[in-house]
Amino acid sequence: MGRTGSERSGEILAAALDLFTRLGYEATTMADIGAAIGVRGPSLYRHVASKQDILAQIMTRTMTELLGAHRSALAGLAGTAQDDPVERLRRATEAHVRYHARHRREAFIGNREIRSLVAPGRARVLTLRSEYERCFRDLIETGIQAGRFDVTSARLASYAILDLGMGVAVWFRDGGEPGEDAVVWQYGQFALRLVGAR
Amino acid sequence: MGRTGSERSGEILAAALDLFTRLGYEATTMADIGAAIGVRGPSLYRHVASKQDILAQIMTRTMTELLGAHRSALAGLAGTAQDDPVERLRRATEAHVRYHARHRREAFIGNREIRSLVAPGRARVLTLRSEYERCFRDLIETGIQAGRFDVTSARLASYAILDLGMGVAVWFRDGGEPGEDAVVWQYGQFALRLVGAR
Repeated sequence: MGRTGSERSGEILAAALDLFTRLGYEATTMADIGAAIGVRGPSLYRHVASKQDILAQIMTRTMTELLGAHRSALAGLAGTAQDDPVERLRRATEAHVRYHARHRREAFIGNREIRSLVAPGRARVLTLRSEYERCFRDLIETGIQAGRFDVTSARLASYAILDLGMGVAVWFRDGGEPGEDAVVWQYGQFALRLVGAR
Repeated sequence: MGRTGSERSGEILAAALDLFTRLGYEATTMADIGAAIGVRGPSLYRHVASKQDILAQIMTRTMTELLGAHRSALAGLAGTAQDDPVERLRRATEAHVRYHARHRREAFIGNREIRSLVAPGRARVLTLRSEYERCFRDLIETGIQAGRFDVTSARLASYAILDLGMGVAVWFRDGGEPGEDAVVWQYGQFALRLVGAR
């Protein structure tokens, strides 16, 4: 049975994600990516424009998924929790940490290869990153205005929370202790403590 | 006036730090490093064994400096503060954050190029990193035992504090606002809040 174009694109991105993680973006060739999924070079180009295009797609997808996870987490809050700055920041942090525990290679590549990403993909990814950071900063500013958080700089607090969550992608191991749920819960606590939630 | 061997070694490391940051370790050649300081390839080898040796020296020095800054910060505590877990963790975090605000390229390379580092340099750097992490974990455990901190996992708290401090190296800019001292102070507060200091 033939694969659809979208299935093939998914395979290409998955193979590239693996190769970029192991060899690095610069050292990986389109031929390596083709060989990993049993496709000759030329027919790869029916699905992706270039290696740069693949890198842009991987990084854009990572940020789109993170933003989606963020919105779902907040949309999932029920009743009064929906407007509670404490519950909103807890949920947003938990979604952030869970994503990084589950997508360690995407986080690694986003971090390591951002310098290899050029226009126009680079601008798109940086815009999405700043949009995502803005979501956290807004949550914190809302909490400060509501008198629920005690923070001098919402920007620094948002950076600190995002950075400790991204760190999870570096050290977390499946099957290790504490497990994903325990890490997610504790990091949610860390974030609330960090902003002086009450 | 001729340069001493140690001055020359310092120049080589400084040039390599710059090139590794801009081009990446893999893409930088020994000839690039030599050209940057006006030394032909062969005479570079009187000072360093290889490009790998340079990378190992840069990363080892970074960790040695961090450990040194940590010890000096704690040694600088006066009177009763010397045994106060809260003051000790505050000082240690401040030293960690200040180092990362001032050594952004070293942090970037330590993060990006650790995969390019091979034996025996790799083992040495990983040992120093784990020693440094252990310092923070010990500070937190001591605070828990003294009833001053309220933390479920000292390990997770140490990771979170180290990661938020390393994040500073990514976003901090000289001359930006808030400045270095304000960032250092606020991050010290973040760390104390994170461990539930009282």
